[in-house]
Amino acid sequence: MSPTSLLTDRYELTMLQAALRDGTASRRCVFEVFTRRLPPGRRYGVVAGTGRFLESLADFRFGTAELDWLADERIVDDPTLAYLADYRFTGDVVGYAEGEVFFPSSPVLVVSGTFAEAVLLETLALSVLNHDSAVASAASRMTSAAVDRPCLEMGSRRAHEEAAVAAARAAVVAGFAGTSNLEAGRRYGLATIGTAAHAFTLLHDDEAAAFASQVASLGAATTLLVDTYDVRAGVERALAAAGTSLGAVRLDSGDLAGLAGEVRHQLDAAGAHDTKIVVTSDLDEHAIAALAVAPVDVYGVGTSVVTGSGAPTCGMVYKLVAREEVDGRMRPVAKASTAKTSVGGRKAAARRLGADGRAVAEVLVQGPDELVRAWTAPAGGDEGVEGADRLRALHVPLISAGVVDPSRIGPDAVVAAARRHRASRDELPRGARRLSADEAAVPTVELRLQG
Amino acid sequence: MSPTSLLTDRYELTMLQAALRDGTASRRCVFEVFTRRLPPGRRYGVVAGTGRFLESLADFRFGTAELDWLADERIVDDPTLAYLADYRFTGDVVGYAEGEVFFPSSPVLVVSGTFAEAVLLETLALSVLNHDSAVASAASRMTSAAVDRPCLEMGSRRAHEEAAVAAARAAVVAGFAGTSNLEAGRRYGLATIGTAAHAFTLLHDDEAAAFASQVASLGAATTLLVDTYDVRAGVERALAAAGTSLGAVRLDSGDLAGLAGEVRHQLDAAGAHDTKIVVTSDLDEHAIAALAVAPVDVYGVGTSVVTGSGAPTCGMVYKLVAREEVDGRMRPVAKASTAKTSVGGRKAAARRLGADGRAVAEVLVQGPDELVRAWTAPAGGDEGVEGADRLRALHVPLISAGVVDPSRIGPDAVVAAARRHRASRDELPRGARRLSADEAAVPTVELRLQG
Repeated sequence: MSPTSLLTDRYELTMLQAALRDGTASRRCVFEVFTRRLPPGRRYGVVAGTGRFLESLADFRFGTAELDWLADERIVDDPTLAYLADYRFTGDVVGYAEGEVFFPSSPVLVVSGTFAEAVLLETLALSVLNHDSAVASAASRMTSAAVDRPCLEMGSRRAHEEAAVAAARAAVVAGFAGTSNLEAGRRYGLATIGTAAHAFTLLHDDEAAAFASQVASLGAATTLLVDTYDVRAGVERALAAAGTSLGAVRLDSGDLAGLAGEVRHQLDAAGAHDTKIVVTSDLDEHAIAALAVAPVDVYGVGTSVVTGSGAPTCGMVYKLVAREEVDGRMRPVAKASTAKTSVGGRKAAARRLGADGRAVAEVLVQGPDELVRAWTAPAGGDEGVEGADRLRALHVPLISAGVVDPSRIGPDAVVAAARRHRASRDELPRGARRLSADEAAVPTVELRLQG
Repeated sequence: MSPTSLLTDRYELTMLQAALRDGTASRRCVFEVFTRRLPPGRRYGVVAGTGRFLESLADFRFGTAELDWLADERIVDDPTLAYLADYRFTGDVVGYAEGEVFFPSSPVLVVSGTFAEAVLLETLALSVLNHDSAVASAASRMTSAAVDRPCLEMGSRRAHEEAAVAAARAAVVAGFAGTSNLEAGRRYGLATIGTAAHAFTLLHDDEAAAFASQVASLGAATTLLVDTYDVRAGVERALAAAGTSLGAVRLDSGDLAGLAGEVRHQLDAAGAHDTKIVVTSDLDEHAIAALAVAPVDVYGVGTSVVTGSGAPTCGMVYKLVAREEVDGRMRPVAKASTAKTSVGGRKAAARRLGADGRAVAEVLVQGPDELVRAWTAPAGGDEGVEGADRLRALHVPLISAGVVDPSRIGPDAVVAAARRHRASRDELPRGARRLSADEAAVPTVELRLQG
């Protein structure tokens, strides 16, 4: 990997320069990542990208090439270059576990360290979390609408080439069963899938020749694209080429619900009861929901999942909420002018669950450290008093004194995040998964504990 | 750079395998990249990413790591792995010059080569062009609305970290004056800019201390962020810290038009006539247009430019339009079923200009090669007959027999693309730059020449 240290806004480095010079760079700070609101109509968001952010930190180094460029461009002065040359993040990061759902103001990442070391991570942390969470938040609505039918991610071509890899990963966090993106398969151990393009059929002298070639090379379990010319004739030729053990046919245009019904009938009439029907063609969560009663087996989703289905970014911000005073104590801080006010002070987070185990509220807890810990601690084996509300703590350690928790990165972390997402989504109130526009599924409330 | 060869959909490799086996892989093919429609209400699009695509081809190689993974995962068979190991694109690519405007069906990229070598580039070409052109298309509306005031790109944090670098480049192609993204500055020679964050003010004991520190470190020409507490008091403190030679103040919240007027008045009253006002805070092309009468000097644009201002992808497709017959002749091909029909056959493209030099139509020309060349050839020094319509050819050579035209890549190509975009946009009919929703600024027409 190439260094990730310049995937950063210029002002972070110039603020560092000024703070190094005036001595405030060493003040301990707490930054929180949160979003002020969900996209219009959305009921919850999904945290994704945490693992990628942690992985990218290993490459957040200023090497000779980066330092030389910064010097040549006179971006920062020599003392700042010297600081950057030795840069390592040595602080602590806690956050929502990847795959967890979030709401407005949820502190999905909390970064503690000196101003110098923490401010430099602003852009990278936000880039990764804003993008990946936007994709996962949309993807979760699709897998929710698809119920038990698999969704496959096929949108690489509609996204920046590296964003496409991250999007595939985020979609899988939110329940997608696989991706067409090979690099995502390699990098994150995701299942890769694929069918064929119209170009393959058009390349051949006729559709029968194309199907025969594909079956000869890839076996009868392959998926044949049957809508290049006439769908009914296409299905007939597909069965002629592969027999009734044909894996699947793909429909990529037209009235998918109607076509799927006709094709299912045609397949069954020919005895191809196990041949599946894959549909693609600009599907989003609403189109998937509309196909619930059609005999469709698999949804291939492209543009809408990689672009967040109308909400391509999460609007998460990285805000200083507390910093060290001259006397060494931590002081809550917040912007105080006109709009965009936020709540100062470090916040713990817990989800309040009702007697039925379903989420009732997102609780942001402030107060003396020990009290906060006691309130948000996991209740232990018995999960609290039966029939009473209980709090589920949401922050997990991600980086401790500069050391990344290895369980949060790599391919295994993606599997764990997908599992966690299912559990977290299942915990939402009934109705939270409706696609119609509505408020956040649970309110975010503040709880101030007094010592 | 790491290899770009796996930034690809799995089906391209499995189609290759089948085509290698049946002998069609060596058939000469022509693929065209185009979009069927512009985003709702948009009047034109802007081609961007061409240079990045050409640059990425140098790394489109299947090395040991990629081949081993493909073999381990049994994605393709041994003959296909052998083909990939030696893969080099040896064909030809022509396309719209980067920065050129485009319309529905404009063939912005035309790839000619064997099926094998051309099909592998589908995903990478589309990823780059769909993303970068979406950003440039939105950015052009912003620079158009800003007229002579500079727009600065500050949206890295709202985009995938690598997409952010590409977005900065695309924004500059469409007229942005600079970017906050350091890696974009380094990689493409773009001007980098920056101010300060609220965190910098909150880090300090008070606003005066923060401003004094910033000025001491970065000089009076810096931009001070004055809306952390009270804007009027902030401007006063800013002037106290930097004097009337203060470079600029930034407003990031509230009623920007009203505030800008008050701040301008306050600055002028203090004699700081040259101190500029930078506004940020969720600006898009409409907000920029609404600020036209406010005393604003610079627009800092974030989310809306990097996410394409409502249209985060262009919907461009990569379609086989012609392929070699058994007898060696090229045959037009096109999908023929229900929806999404496209026009087969290789198309040249030209912009028809009226007597006033403004665009009248996008002309897609088909017919015998020599006739097409004659029709779309540049008219030479005198630019055709005075007072008559003339055609401006739109395709330029990008890759010839596998060799990339060096003038189309690197930092110089970005400068050239920005210049070309200005000229191309200026050539559009009056009214094409209105922001209100409307049809494509000129119609796309087909012209078939008979030999």
